[in-house]
Amino acid sequence: MSEHGATRATTAQDVADLAGVSISAVSRAFTPGASVSKQTRSRVMEAAEKLGYTPNLVARSLATQRSGIVGLVMGDIRNPYYPEVIDALSRRLASSGFRTMLTTVWGDVTVDDVGPSLVQSKVDGVIIASIAEADRLGDTLFKAGAAVVLFNRSTLASESLSSVRCENVEGGRSVANFLLDRGLTRLAYIAGVEHIYTTQEREAGFVGRITERGHQLHARETGDYTYQGGFDAAQRLASLDVPPDSVFCANDITAIGAIDGFRALGLRVPDDISVVGFDDIELASWPPYRLTTVRQDKTALIENTVGMLVQQIRSGERTRQIKLVPVAIVERNSVVSNRVAG
Amino acid sequence: MSEHGATRATTAQDVADLAGVSISAVSRAFTPGASVSKQTRSRVMEAAEKLGYTPNLVARSLATQRSGIVGLVMGDIRNPYYPEVIDALSRRLASSGFRTMLTTVWGDVTVDDVGPSLVQSKVDGVIIASIAEADRLGDTLFKAGAAVVLFNRSTLASESLSSVRCENVEGGRSVANFLLDRGLTRLAYIAGVEHIYTTQEREAGFVGRITERGHQLHARETGDYTYQGGFDAAQRLASLDVPPDSVFCANDITAIGAIDGFRALGLRVPDDISVVGFDDIELASWPPYRLTTVRQDKTALIENTVGMLVQQIRSGERTRQIKLVPVAIVERNSVVSNRVAG
Repeated sequence: MSEHGATRATTAQDVADLAGVSISAVSRAFTPGASVSKQTRSRVMEAAEKLGYTPNLVARSLATQRSGIVGLVMGDIRNPYYPEVIDALSRRLASSGFRTMLTTVWGDVTVDDVGPSLVQSKVDGVIIASIAEADRLGDTLFKAGAAVVLFNRSTLASESLSSVRCENVEGGRSVANFLLDRGLTRLAYIAGVEHIYTTQEREAGFVGRITERGHQLHARETGDYTYQGGFDAAQRLASLDVPPDSVFCANDITAIGAIDGFRALGLRVPDDISVVGFDDIELASWPPYRLTTVRQDKTALIENTVGMLVQQIRSGERTRQIKLVPVAIVERNSVVSNRVAG
Repeated sequence: MSEHGATRATTAQDVADLAGVSISAVSRAFTPGASVSKQTRSRVMEAAEKLGYTPNLVARSLATQRSGIVGLVMGDIRNPYYPEVIDALSRRLASSGFRTMLTTVWGDVTVDDVGPSLVQSKVDGVIIASIAEADRLGDTLFKAGAAVVLFNRSTLASESLSSVRCENVEGGRSVANFLLDRGLTRLAYIAGVEHIYTTQEREAGFVGRITERGHQLHARETGDYTYQGGFDAAQRLASLDVPPDSVFCANDITAIGAIDGFRALGLRVPDDISVVGFDDIELASWPPYRLTTVRQDKTALIENTVGMLVQQIRSGERTRQIKLVPVAIVERNSVVSNRVAG
């Protein structure tokens, strides 16, 4: 049988021979994130193209028992916070040699619809963010053997899941201090999607600190974590007999909707009403909004999430780890600088 | 050997027996998008959990020679147009039984970095959107046997790739008519990323129609398809000896940045300068912008893209198909209603 005869499939060794490199260099050239020089990779690719060789990851994953795929489960990615996170996470995973499989869960799609598919895919690990019942889906995948890290989700309802999230409670507390220190006294909260932990934790910190300082929450509305939800909630707050003088919103997109909602009624931000958000998305810095908000350290969140996940995948260990990333208030122009307490 | 003994792996037949359903019902319950009642699926899942059964898609894909995965290649997904598209595409693919694997290409990541990984993954099909060199990546994957559809990208440089895109040239022509009909005469264009076809096609239609009507393009700038790019380009246009009276931007996020850039210099939109975008993202309708823009029919784009791709995957045919989806101007408040020609 000739060395490159048509009667058998081309192997990695054939490619190595033609390219004049080792078989391990061929393997590395085809492995995302693996260390290989540009020159070697291009010689391997040229030889592979000439011989019609494409390594089959599916077959390889059966041999290694690994798929090289990390599932990323997201909710409503139309919140601009998440595209920034998806992009950064998928790049960071690629640099560790993993490809990202995106699954979205929101609206009429539930965790019951996506769970079986993710289990079937034999993903090596899963990052779950911004969805309801993240812990239930996480537990299912954990039991099926996947490494699981919840991104910016609490794990109150689970005993085994790891989590990387920001200091939501502390963020809420610092907003309460920030507003009360400026003489504002009628503080309101616009919640996100009610059953999601982030909004609950931010509210707990906010209301807890208001109470500690001898005040009480003046009003509360729900904004559903969307622009329109914030817009509508602001209009309801403004129509109260005694409207609030300041509003903390569960995330930035809600706060931006709230600002436009107040303005549509002729109210000025911050002169008539102060608004604070949470996240520090790019939009928050745009001139029409100049939103004062709680900044999440996205780089730290992503580094910790991928680091924790990859360590669990490589070691096979599933020890629970929890990492809380600090937050900080970014001052812009949506809160009055000072006001005599009224 | 006992029927459910520990000495052999649990099979789909075991699950079917325990759940009291057919083996084909078990298979369908584990296939995303397959037709199966909620009741049957929940009985199958319960039995599977009891028996510790998880079907292995990796093994199954080796048998069927299909991975059930569609690759989605995107550029800068921080443009709010794309999260809406990613979400809708991945849902539409799931309803056809495919999972979505997301790969992002922008900044320092090129098509050469992601091509080998996608070929290795043996994806059944690939949708390529919003990246430079989409046709080169598409050709590579096409040669490797994948079904490939370019989403909103032209195929001028390829002889084999299928494409679904909107009528970019016609959109540019209709904006020229729209502005000239209102007495505006100093029309400018803010381009997107220069080597991407969408901005070239929109500009070709815009400038072509201006010339046909006996005028010429007054000024041209580049906005890089970003908010900041539009902001900076607007400031350069406003500082010209004779500034334009109207600006067509290659996409909405550029137009929104341009509006804020003009306003930062004290100019009023539309009284001092009219602005038109392209896409009709959600932001375009927000009160601070109320942007007049060219609407892309996202539903039609997505239906046609997934329909074309799935047909090619299932049939094995790779006949080239091109589908152009019509566009329409959405009038809001960023263009003057009429002006005496000057």
